[in-house]
Amino acid sequence: MAVYTEISDEELDTLLDQYALGQALSCKGIAEGVENSNYLLHTEAGYFILTLYEKRVRAADLPFFLGLMEHLAAGGFMSPKPIAAKDGNTLKEVAGRPAAIIEFLDGRSVRRATPLHCALLGQTLAQLHTVGSNFQLKRANTLSLSSWRPLYESCLTDNHSGLDAQIFSGIDEEIKYLESHWPTNLPSGVIHADLFPDNIFFLNDQVSGVIDYYFACNDFFAYDLAICLNAWCFETDDSFNITKARKLLNGYREVRAFSQKELEFLPLLCRGAAIRFMLTRLYDWLNQIEGALVKPKDPLEYFKKLQFHQAVTTVAAYGLD
Amino acid sequence: MAVYTEISDEELDTLLDQYALGQALSCKGIAEGVENSNYLLHTEAGYFILTLYEKRVRAADLPFFLGLMEHLAAGGFMSPKPIAAKDGNTLKEVAGRPAAIIEFLDGRSVRRATPLHCALLGQTLAQLHTVGSNFQLKRANTLSLSSWRPLYESCLTDNHSGLDAQIFSGIDEEIKYLESHWPTNLPSGVIHADLFPDNIFFLNDQVSGVIDYYFACNDFFAYDLAICLNAWCFETDDSFNITKARKLLNGYREVRAFSQKELEFLPLLCRGAAIRFMLTRLYDWLNQIEGALVKPKDPLEYFKKLQFHQAVTTVAAYGLD
Repeated sequence: MAVYTEISDEELDTLLDQYALGQALSCKGIAEGVENSNYLLHTEAGYFILTLYEKRVRAADLPFFLGLMEHLAAGGFMSPKPIAAKDGNTLKEVAGRPAAIIEFLDGRSVRRATPLHCALLGQTLAQLHTVGSNFQLKRANTLSLSSWRPLYESCLTDNHSGLDAQIFSGIDEEIKYLESHWPTNLPSGVIHADLFPDNIFFLNDQVSGVIDYYFACNDFFAYDLAICLNAWCFETDDSFNITKARKLLNGYREVRAFSQKELEFLPLLCRGAAIRFMLTRLYDWLNQIEGALVKPKDPLEYFKKLQFHQAVTTVAAYGLD
Repeated sequence: MAVYTEISDEELDTLLDQYALGQALSCKGIAEGVENSNYLLHTEAGYFILTLYEKRVRAADLPFFLGLMEHLAAGGFMSPKPIAAKDGNTLKEVAGRPAAIIEFLDGRSVRRATPLHCALLGQTLAQLHTVGSNFQLKRANTLSLSSWRPLYESCLTDNHSGLDAQIFSGIDEEIKYLESHWPTNLPSGVIHADLFPDNIFFLNDQVSGVIDYYFACNDFFAYDLAICLNAWCFETDDSFNITKARKLLNGYREVRAFSQKELEFLPLLCRGAAIRFMLTRLYDWLNQIEGALVKPKDPLEYFKKLQFHQAVTTVAAYGLD
């Protein structure tokens, strides 16, 4: 939830001059997205999301993100479509920031996901992997295995910011384990890599939109599933809901079959996904941005998820036979 | 800019069941309004603002605020209209908060007001005073003269939170002066009492909406002008822009004539308006709400405005002959 960069009237008018969307009738900052500034923009042509990319998003990655959204939307996947300006480009600049105007999709994200939502999520994730598989651009996952140790080391401070020293040594041990056991050859392609409940809209018990592709990259498909198992299948009391996990995995394989190797590595991938989100949360916790309208998320939540997966030996723990 | 209270899907559905607006298609928290939580709500019937009233707004005042908006809209003034539920009421409850669904008005607030905007503001303020004059409900101004000393005293802390002790004694002196010189018998009626640039929308160089009536009350019309002179006619370097002031006052009297007494008291009312906003800002500065996504505004800005008006002897300083 954030609006970081404000846009003046003049800047907005200059931006819209480059599009065939008529004039801006209203433009309101919305509490959506953590990495970027988002506005709900009403023009004579309709309602849109105007996104300004903040520092944390690398400008060089924007053609990948916007191109992917175009590719997915063209392939019938429920991604919002970036709007092309009169010159054909989807990437512009406003208020000194790279910016894009993106289709507004109806739908609402769910606070408390049900097993039905998890089944729909699984199908949707597999559709994303399928439709995304012939996207031409590539982007490495900058938040995968090789980034974890440097990220961890950048979080080592004298006082640990109130966190238990035992947690730090637990992370250290886990990264060592993951470094020596991480798979190298699983089915791969474009993954969303951040498909949290905030980023999927439902309407009438159907998925109406998948948003926020700003972590999308090329990586193992099953790692995307691991991220979703962590984000969707734990209850607020940190217990794991095996019914939701089963629905998620079965929904997925209705659309795309798993290989045996993917299933074998799933517990390990879940551990990696837990470390990845714990480390970025820890980093944000220790490096709170002055003036950001965002409360950092609790890194400990992901430490508990990690501990759950450390005890898992087979996918039976996730509800699969 | 704030979203304080979050609404679950179920709560939103239960709310909308009470209206004839169809189902909710999307609902996004918007960065608008400091006192309340605001959502941009899209239903099958169109776009609306859903406002949840937070603690700072007294529930007993809501019939006045919502009734005033209805009265103004019915009288042709550009207030958004509160939407009546099926039972005829505009005030409902969601997520444990009083709530209202209000018409969505297009338009954009200006960052840097021009003299033209000030002229339009003046006309609009006079229209509000005229259309509001036959509104039946009454509400005392709880942030006028009698509140300033208690508010000032509640701000007296040991360390002054980094503010100069001289400022505190300056406020003390000023309140004494205002208490002995405040007028008792100027033309009165419903005033907006918070008509800052955020609260007025323009479209094609016309006013398209006036929002945020949650400080509206019965008080001197000229006090509303004083609030606007402070909010619109100082530049960011604290200098007073007499051209904007003249445009504002002349715009106003095109619609409603001033009495001689109103003009005489205007410098004093400007001093009072400066004290009022300085004190609430000071209070907010000293009592920052945990978790609020709002940065408190600088109280010193209003101390400088106060000093300007203290040196004013006649309305010639505001550009009037």
